[in-house]
Amino acid sequence: MELETVVGAYARVAELYASLLGSVEQVHRDDLALVERHLGHLRGPVLDVGCGPGHWTEHLRSLGVDASGVDPVPPFVEHARATHPLGRYDVGALPDPGPRDGSQAGVLAWYSLIHVEPAGLEPALAALRRLLRPGGTLVLGFFDGERVEPFEHRVVRAHRWPVDEVSRRLAAAGLVEVERARRPAEEGHRPHAAVVARAA
Amino acid sequence: MELETVVGAYARVAELYASLLGSVEQVHRDDLALVERHLGHLRGPVLDVGCGPGHWTEHLRSLGVDASGVDPVPPFVEHARATHPLGRYDVGALPDPGPRDGSQAGVLAWYSLIHVEPAGLEPALAALRRLLRPGGTLVLGFFDGERVEPFEHRVVRAHRWPVDEVSRRLAAAGLVEVERARRPAEEGHRPHAAVVARAA
Repeated sequence: MELETVVGAYARVAELYASLLGSVEQVHRDDLALVERHLGHLRGPVLDVGCGPGHWTEHLRSLGVDASGVDPVPPFVEHARATHPLGRYDVGALPDPGPRDGSQAGVLAWYSLIHVEPAGLEPALAALRRLLRPGGTLVLGFFDGERVEPFEHRVVRAHRWPVDEVSRRLAAAGLVEVERARRPAEEGHRPHAAVVARAA
Repeated sequence: MELETVVGAYARVAELYASLLGSVEQVHRDDLALVERHLGHLRGPVLDVGCGPGHWTEHLRSLGVDASGVDPVPPFVEHARATHPLGRYDVGALPDPGPRDGSQAGVLAWYSLIHVEPAGLEPALAALRRLLRPGGTLVLGFFDGERVEPFEHRVVRAHRWPVDEVSRRLAAAGLVEVERARRPAEEGHRPHAAVVARAA
Protein backbone atom coordinates (compact mmCIF):
# COMPACT_ATOMS: atom_id res chain seq x y z
CA MET A 1 0.00 0.00 0.00
CA GLU A 2 1.28 3.45 -0.90
CA LEU A 3 2.35 5.60 2.02
CA GLU A 4 -0.02 8.39 1.01
CA THR A 5 -2.97 5.99 1.03
CA VAL A 6 -2.13 4.92 4.56
CA VAL A 7 -1.53 8.50 5.69
CA GLY A 8 -4.83 9.62 4.18
CA ALA A 9 -6.74 6.81 5.84
CA TYR A 10 -5.28 7.58 9.26
CA ALA A 11 -5.63 11.33 8.82
CA ARG A 12 -9.39 10.92 8.32
CA VAL A 13 -9.81 9.02 11.58
CA ALA A 14 -7.00 10.61 13.58
CA GLU A 15 -9.20 12.38 16.12
CA LEU A 16 -11.37 9.34 16.86
CA TYR A 17 -8.33 7.06 16.85
CA ALA A 18 -6.47 9.30 19.29
CA SER A 19 -9.52 9.58 21.50
CA LEU A 20 -10.06 5.83 21.70
CA LEU A 21 -6.55 4.40 21.36
CA GLY A 22 -4.21 7.25 22.24
CA SER A 23 -3.49 6.20 25.80
CA VAL A 24 -1.33 3.51 27.39
CA GLU A 25 -4.40 2.65 29.48
CA GLN A 26 -5.67 0.91 26.35
CA VAL A 27 -2.42 -1.05 25.99
CA HIS A 28 -2.24 -4.67 27.15
CA ARG A 29 -0.20 -4.84 30.34
CA ASP A 30 2.07 -7.52 28.87
CA ASP A 31 2.95 -5.18 26.03
CA LEU A 32 3.57 -2.35 28.43
CA ALA A 33 5.84 -4.59 30.49
CA LEU A 34 7.76 -5.75 27.40
CA VAL A 35 8.39 -2.23 26.16
CA GLU A 36 9.33 -0.98 29.62
CA ARG A 37 11.70 -3.89 30.17
CA HIS A 38 13.60 -3.32 26.95
CA LEU A 39 13.40 0.43 26.39
CA GLY A 40 12.46 1.91 29.76
CA HIS A 41 15.98 1.90 31.19
CA LEU A 42 17.93 3.14 28.15
CA ARG A 43 20.18 6.17 28.62
CA GLY A 44 20.51 7.20 24.99
CA PRO A 45 17.78 8.52 22.72
CA VAL A 46 14.86 6.34 21.75
CA LEU A 47 12.80 6.95 18.63
CA ASP A 48 9.14 5.96 18.53
CA VAL A 49 8.70 5.33 14.81
CA GLY A 50 5.05 5.63 13.81
CA CYS A 51 4.21 7.20 17.16
CA GLY A 52 0.59 7.97 16.26
CA PRO A 53 -0.98 10.11 19.00
CA GLY A 54 2.24 9.88 21.03
CA HIS A 55 1.14 7.80 24.00
CA TRP A 56 4.07 5.37 23.83
CA THR A 57 6.58 8.21 23.46
CA GLU A 58 5.08 10.00 26.41
CA HIS A 59 5.07 6.86 28.49
CA LEU A 60 8.77 6.30 27.82
CA ARG A 61 9.43 9.95 28.68
CA SER A 62 7.55 9.47 31.94
CA LEU A 63 10.07 6.73 32.76
CA GLY A 64 12.94 9.17 32.22
CA VAL A 65 13.81 8.02 28.71
CA ASP A 66 14.94 10.58 26.12
CA ALA A 67 12.19 9.49 23.74
CA SER A 68 10.83 11.35 20.74
CA GLY A 69 8.21 10.44 18.19
CA VAL A 70 7.89 10.56 14.45
CA ASP A 71 4.83 9.76 12.36
CA PRO A 72 3.85 10.29 8.73
CA VAL A 73 0.30 11.39 9.64
CA PRO A 74 0.29 15.16 10.34
CA PRO A 75 -2.89 15.18 12.48
CA PHE A 76 -1.28 12.60 14.77
CA VAL A 77 1.83 14.74 15.15
CA GLU A 78 -0.34 17.78 15.88
CA HIS A 79 -2.31 15.80 18.42
CA ALA A 80 0.85 14.50 20.07
CA ARG A 81 2.35 17.99 20.31
CA ALA A 82 -0.85 19.47 21.72
CA THR A 83 -1.38 16.65 24.23
CA HIS A 84 2.26 16.28 25.30
CA PRO A 85 3.77 19.74 24.84
CA LEU A 86 7.06 18.79 26.51
CA GLY A 87 7.70 15.95 24.07
CA ARG A 88 9.27 16.15 20.65
CA TYR A 89 7.19 15.00 17.71
CA ASP A 90 7.98 15.34 14.03
CA VAL A 91 6.35 14.40 10.77
CA GLY A 92 8.48 11.77 9.13
CA ALA A 93 8.53 8.27 7.72
CA LEU A 94 10.84 5.44 6.82
CA PRO A 95 13.30 5.06 5.19
CA ASP A 96 14.53 8.38 6.57
CA PRO A 97 12.52 9.46 9.60
CA GLY A 98 14.98 12.18 10.60
CA PRO A 99 17.57 11.29 13.24
CA ARG A 100 21.02 10.55 11.88
CA ASP A 101 22.26 7.02 11.37
CA GLY A 102 23.52 5.24 14.44
CA SER A 103 22.12 7.84 16.82
CA GLN A 104 19.48 5.83 18.71
CA ALA A 105 19.90 3.58 21.72
CA GLY A 106 16.45 2.20 21.05
CA VAL A 107 13.69 2.19 18.48
CA LEU A 108 10.06 1.35 19.09
CA ALA A 109 8.06 0.37 16.01
CA TRP A 110 4.77 -0.65 17.54
CA TYR A 111 2.42 -1.80 14.79
CA SER A 112 4.18 0.74 12.60
CA LEU A 113 5.08 -1.66 9.80
CA ILE A 114 1.71 -3.41 9.53
CA HIS A 115 0.75 -1.46 6.42
CA VAL A 116 4.06 -2.08 4.64
CA GLU A 117 3.73 -4.41 1.65
CA PRO A 118 5.68 -7.66 2.06
CA ALA A 119 8.34 -6.53 -0.42
CA GLY A 120 8.81 -3.39 1.64
CA LEU A 121 9.55 -5.07 4.94
CA GLU A 122 13.24 -5.67 4.41
CA PRO A 123 14.03 -2.07 3.42
CA ALA A 124 11.96 -0.88 6.38
CA LEU A 125 13.85 -3.11 8.82
CA ALA A 126 17.14 -2.00 7.29
CA ALA A 127 16.11 1.61 7.87
CA LEU A 128 15.30 0.86 11.52
CA ARG A 129 18.65 -0.87 11.87
CA ARG A 130 20.48 2.16 10.48
CA LEU A 131 18.96 4.38 13.17
CA LEU A 132 20.41 2.23 15.95
CA ARG A 133 23.78 2.30 17.60
CA PRO A 134 25.58 -1.02 17.74
CA GLY A 135 23.96 -2.92 20.57
CA GLY A 136 20.84 -0.77 20.30
CA THR A 137 17.42 -2.30 20.88
CA LEU A 138 14.48 -2.57 18.52
CA VAL A 139 11.01 -3.46 19.77
CA LEU A 140 8.61 -4.42 17.02
CA GLY A 141 4.89 -5.13 17.49
CA PHE A 142 2.69 -6.58 14.75
CA PHE A 143 -0.20 -8.89 13.88
CA ASP A 144 0.73 -12.53 14.26
CA GLY A 145 -0.15 -14.97 11.51
CA GLU A 146 0.52 -18.45 10.20
CA ARG A 147 1.66 -16.97 6.90
CA VAL A 148 2.25 -13.56 5.40
CA GLU A 149 -1.17 -12.41 4.29
CA PRO A 150 -3.19 -9.25 3.93
CA PHE A 151 -6.42 -8.51 5.77
CA GLU A 152 -8.82 -5.63 6.08
CA HIS A 153 -7.62 -3.74 9.10
CA ARG A 154 -10.07 -1.29 10.67
CA VAL A 155 -8.27 1.67 9.16
CA VAL A 156 -6.62 0.40 5.99
CA ARG A 157 -5.34 -2.93 4.68
CA ALA A 158 -2.56 -4.53 6.70
CA HIS A 159 -0.55 -7.75 6.71
CA ARG A 160 -0.08 -10.37 9.38
CA TRP A 161 3.31 -12.04 9.67
CA PRO A 162 4.68 -15.23 11.19
CA VAL A 163 7.11 -14.42 13.98
CA ASP A 164 9.79 -16.73 12.53
CA GLU A 165 9.60 -14.93 9.22
CA VAL A 166 9.98 -11.54 10.89
CA SER A 167 12.86 -12.85 12.96
CA ARG A 168 14.65 -14.13 9.83
CA ARG A 169 14.25 -10.80 8.11
CA LEU A 170 15.45 -8.95 11.18
CA ALA A 171 18.57 -11.13 11.18
CA ALA A 172 19.11 -10.33 7.51
CA ALA A 173 18.96 -6.65 8.44
CA GLY A 174 21.57 -7.11 11.21
CA LEU A 175 19.14 -7.36 14.11
CA VAL A 176 19.37 -10.41 16.35
CA GLU A 177 16.24 -11.56 18.16
CA VAL A 178 16.56 -11.53 21.94
CA GLU A 179 12.94 -12.04 22.95
CA ARG A 180 9.59 -12.73 21.39
CA ALA A 181 6.03 -12.62 22.67
CA ARG A 182 2.80 -13.93 21.18
CA ARG A 183 -0.80 -13.56 22.31
CA PRO A 184 -3.71 -15.35 20.69
CA ALA A 185 -6.85 -13.54 19.55
CA GLU A 186 -9.00 -12.28 22.38
CA GLU A 187 -12.08 -10.09 22.67
CA GLY A 188 -11.98 -8.29 19.37
CA HIS A 189 -8.17 -8.25 19.20
CA ARG A 190 -6.35 -10.17 16.50
CA PRO A 191 -3.40 -12.41 17.36
CA HIS A 192 -0.49 -10.28 18.45
CA ALA A 193 3.25 -10.76 18.24
CA ALA A 194 6.26 -8.76 19.31
CA VAL A 195 9.95 -9.28 18.69
CA VAL A 196 12.80 -7.60 20.52
CA ALA A 197 16.09 -7.51 18.62
CA ARG A 198 19.55 -6.14 19.21
CA ALA A 199 21.60 -4.35 16.57
CA ALA A 200 24.62 -6.53 15.78
CA MET B 1 -25.10 21.19 13.11
CA GLU B 2 -26.56 20.13 9.79
CA LEU B 3 -27.49 16.46 9.53
CA GLU B 4 -25.33 15.98 6.45
CA THR B 5 -22.28 17.32 8.31
CA VAL B 6 -22.83 14.82 11.10
CA VAL B 7 -23.50 11.98 8.68
CA GLY B 8 -20.37 12.82 6.71
CA ALA B 9 -18.23 12.92 9.82
CA TYR B 10 -19.47 9.54 11.02
CA ALA B 11 -19.31 7.98 7.56
CA ARG B 12 -15.59 8.77 7.38
CA VAL B 13 -14.85 6.99 10.65
CA ALA B 14 -17.57 4.35 10.52
CA GLU B 15 -15.28 1.35 10.16
CA LEU B 16 -12.94 2.36 12.98
CA TYR B 17 -15.89 3.43 15.14
CA ALA B 18 -17.67 0.11 14.60
CA SER B 19 -14.48 -1.80 15.28
CA LEU B 20 -13.79 -0.01 18.57
CA LEU B 21 -17.26 0.87 19.85
CA GLY B 22 -19.64 -1.44 18.02
CA SER B 23 -20.07 -3.97 20.78
CA VAL B 24 -21.99 -4.04 24.05
CA GLU B 25 -18.77 -5.27 25.65
CA GLN B 26 -17.66 -1.65 25.45
CA VAL B 27 -20.84 -0.46 27.17
CA HIS B 28 -20.81 0.41 30.87
CA ARG B 29 -22.60 -2.31 32.78
CA ASP B 30 -24.86 0.23 34.49
CA ASP B 31 -26.03 1.42 31.09
CA LEU B 32 -26.59 -2.11 29.93
CA ALA B 33 -28.63 -2.82 33.06
CA LEU B 34 -30.69 0.35 32.62
CA VAL B 35 -31.56 -0.43 29.01
CA GLU B 36 -32.29 -4.08 29.78
CA ARG B 37 -34.51 -3.14 32.72
CA HIS B 38 -36.64 -0.75 30.71
CA LEU B 39 -36.62 -2.19 27.20
CA GLY B 40 -35.51 -5.80 27.58
CA HIS B 41 -38.93 -7.18 28.56
CA LEU B 42 -41.14 -5.29 26.09
CA ARG B 43 -43.46 -7.33 23.89
CA GLY B 44 -44.08 -4.77 21.17
CA PRO B 45 -41.56 -3.39 18.70
CA VAL B 46 -38.63 -1.31 19.86
CA LEU B 47 -36.81 1.13 17.59
CA ASP B 48 -33.14 1.87 18.15
CA VAL B 49 -32.95 5.39 16.74
CA GLY B 50 -29.37 6.24 15.74
CA CYS B 51 -28.38 2.61 16.05
CA GLY B 52 -24.86 3.10 14.67
CA PRO B 53 -23.19 -0.28 14.12
CA GLY B 54 -26.26 -2.01 15.59
CA HIS B 55 -24.85 -3.45 18.82
CA TRP B 56 -27.69 -2.18 21.00
CA THR B 57 -30.33 -3.41 18.56
CA GLU B 58 -28.70 -6.81 18.43
CA HIS B 59 -28.42 -6.96 22.19
CA LEU B 60 -32.14 -6.26 22.58
CA ARG B 61 -32.88 -8.89 19.95
CA SER B 62 -30.75 -11.37 21.89
CA LEU B 63 -33.11 -10.75 24.82
CA GLY B 64 -36.09 -11.66 22.65
CA VAL B 65 -37.17 -8.10 21.92
CA ASP B 66 -38.58 -7.25 18.48
CA ALA B 67 -35.97 -4.54 18.00
CA SER B 68 -34.89 -2.87 14.78
CA GLY B 69 -32.42 -0.12 14.07
CA VAL B 70 -32.36 3.04 12.04
CA ASP B 71 -29.42 5.36 11.44
CA PRO B 72 -28.73 8.24 9.07
CA VAL B 73 -25.16 7.03 8.34
CA PRO B 74 -25.26 4.49 5.46
CA PRO B 75 -21.93 2.77 6.34
CA PHE B 76 -23.28 2.08 9.82
CA VAL B 77 -26.43 0.52 8.41
CA GLU B 78 -24.35 -1.59 6.01
CA HIS B 79 -22.11 -2.67 8.87
CA ALA B 80 -25.10 -3.53 11.05
CA ARG B 81 -26.72 -5.59 8.29
CA ALA B 82 -23.49 -7.45 7.53
CA THR B 83 -22.68 -8.11 11.17
CA HIS B 84 -26.20 -8.98 12.30
CA PRO B 85 -27.90 -10.43 9.21
CA LEU B 86 -31.01 -11.49 11.11
CA GLY B 87 -31.71 -7.97 12.34
CA ARG B 88 -33.53 -5.23 10.52
CA TYR B 89 -31.63 -2.02 9.86
CA ASP B 90 -32.67 0.94 7.73
CA VAL B 91 -31.23 4.28 6.76
CA GLY B 92 -33.36 6.94 8.33
CA ALA B 93 -33.36 9.95 10.60
CA LEU B 94 -35.63 12.08 12.71
CA PRO B 95 -38.16 13.59 12.37
CA ASP B 96 -39.44 10.64 10.33
CA PRO B 97 -37.27 7.56 10.81
CA GLY B 98 -39.76 5.20 9.17
CA PRO B 99 -42.12 3.32 11.48
CA ARG B 100 -45.61 4.72 11.64
CA ASP B 101 -46.77 6.92 14.50
CA GLY B 102 -47.73 5.14 17.67
CA SER B 103 -46.26 1.83 16.57
CA GLN B 104 -43.43 1.36 19.06
CA ALA B 105 -43.55 -0.09 22.56
CA GLY B 106 -40.11 1.35 23.16
CA VAL B 107 -37.53 3.67 21.66
CA LEU B 108 -33.84 3.74 22.43
CA ALA B 109 -32.02 6.95 21.56
CA TRP B 110 -28.58 6.28 23.00
CA TYR B 111 -26.40 9.32 22.40
CA SER B 112 -28.40 9.83 19.23
CA LEU B 113 -29.42 13.43 19.92
CA ILE B 114 -26.01 14.70 21.05
CA HIS B 115 -25.34 16.40 17.72
CA VAL B 116 -28.73 18.10 17.56
CA GLU B 117 -28.52 21.85 18.01
CA PRO B 118 -30.31 23.13 21.14
CA ALA B 119 -33.16 24.55 19.09
CA GLY B 120 -33.62 21.16 17.48
CA LEU B 121 -34.05 19.15 20.67
CA GLU B 122 -37.76 19.78 21.17
CA PRO B 123 -38.73 18.73 17.64
CA ALA B 124 -36.52 15.67 17.98
CA LEU B 125 -38.14 14.65 21.27
CA ALA B 126 -41.58 15.28 19.77
CA ALA B 127 -40.66 12.95 16.89
CA LEU B 128 -39.57 10.25 19.35
CA ARG B 129 -42.82 10.69 21.24
CA ARG B 130 -44.84 10.26 18.07
CA LEU B 131 -43.25 6.86 17.43
CA LEU B 132 -44.42 5.55 20.80
CA ARG B 133 -47.66 3.94 21.82
CA PRO B 134 -49.35 5.47 24.86
CA GLY B 135 -47.43 4.08 27.82
CA GLY B 136 -44.42 3.34 25.63
CA THR B 137 -40.92 3.78 27.00
CA LEU B 138 -38.13 6.05 25.80
CA VAL B 139 -34.55 5.59 26.98
CA LEU B 140 -32.32 8.54 26.22
CA GLY B 141 -28.55 8.65 26.81
CA PHE B 142 -26.48 11.82 26.50
CA PHE B 143 -23.57 13.86 27.82
CA ASP B 144 -24.34 15.37 31.21
CA GLY B 145 -23.55 19.03 31.81
CA GLU B 146 -24.19 21.90 34.19
CA ARG B 147 -25.60 23.90 31.31
CA VAL B 148 -26.44 23.44 27.66
CA GLU B 149 -23.14 23.90 25.87
CA PRO B 150 -21.28 22.68 22.82
CA PHE B 151 -17.96 20.86 22.92
CA GLU B 152 -15.66 19.19 20.45
CA HIS B 153 -16.71 15.59 20.46
CA ARG B 154 -14.27 13.08 18.99
CA VAL B 155 -16.28 12.78 15.81
CA VAL B 156 -18.08 16.09 15.39
CA ARG B 157 -19.32 18.87 17.67
CA ALA B 158 -21.88 17.86 20.26
CA HIS B 159 -23.78 19.42 23.16
CA ARG B 160 -23.95 18.47 26.79
CA TRP B 161 -27.25 18.95 28.61
CA PRO B 162 -28.38 19.23 32.23
CA VAL B 163 -30.67 16.33 33.13
CA ASP B 164 -33.32 18.65 34.55
CA GLU B 165 -33.43 20.57 31.30
CA VAL B 166 -33.83 17.38 29.28
CA SER B 167 -36.51 16.17 31.66
CA ARG B 168 -38.46 19.43 31.30
CA ARG B 169 -38.30 19.21 27.52
CA LEU B 170 -39.36 15.58 27.59
CA ALA B 171 -42.39 16.58 29.67
CA ALA B 172 -43.22 19.29 27.15
CA ALA B 173 -43.14 16.59 24.47
CA GLY B 174 -45.53 14.36 26.44
CA LEU B 175 -42.91 12.10 27.99
CA VAL B 176 -42.86 11.75 31.77
CA GLU B 177 -39.56 10.92 33.45
CA VAL B 178 -39.63 7.66 35.40
CA GLU B 179 -35.93 7.20 36.09
CA ARG B 180 -32.67 9.03 35.65
CA ALA B 181 -29.03 8.02 35.95
CA ARG B 182 -25.87 10.09 36.09
CA ARG B 183 -22.23 9.07 36.11
CA PRO B 184 -19.35 11.50 36.61
CA ALA B 185 -16.37 11.66 34.26
CA GLU B 186 -14.09 8.66 34.47
CA GLU B 187 -11.07 7.40 32.52
CA GLY B 188 -11.49 9.29 29.31
CA HIS B 189 -15.28 9.28 29.47
CA ARG B 190 -17.22 12.51 29.84
CA PRO B 191 -20.00 12.81 32.40
CA HIS B 192 -22.92 10.68 31.33
CA ALA B 193 -26.65 10.96 31.89
CA ALA B 194 -29.65 8.90 30.94
CA VAL B 195 -33.35 9.55 31.32
CA VAL B 196 -36.12 6.99 31.01
CA ALA B 197 -39.53 8.45 30.21
CA ARG B 198 -43.00 7.10 29.58
CA ALA B 199 -45.30 8.34 26.84
CA ALA B 200 -48.27 10.00 28.50
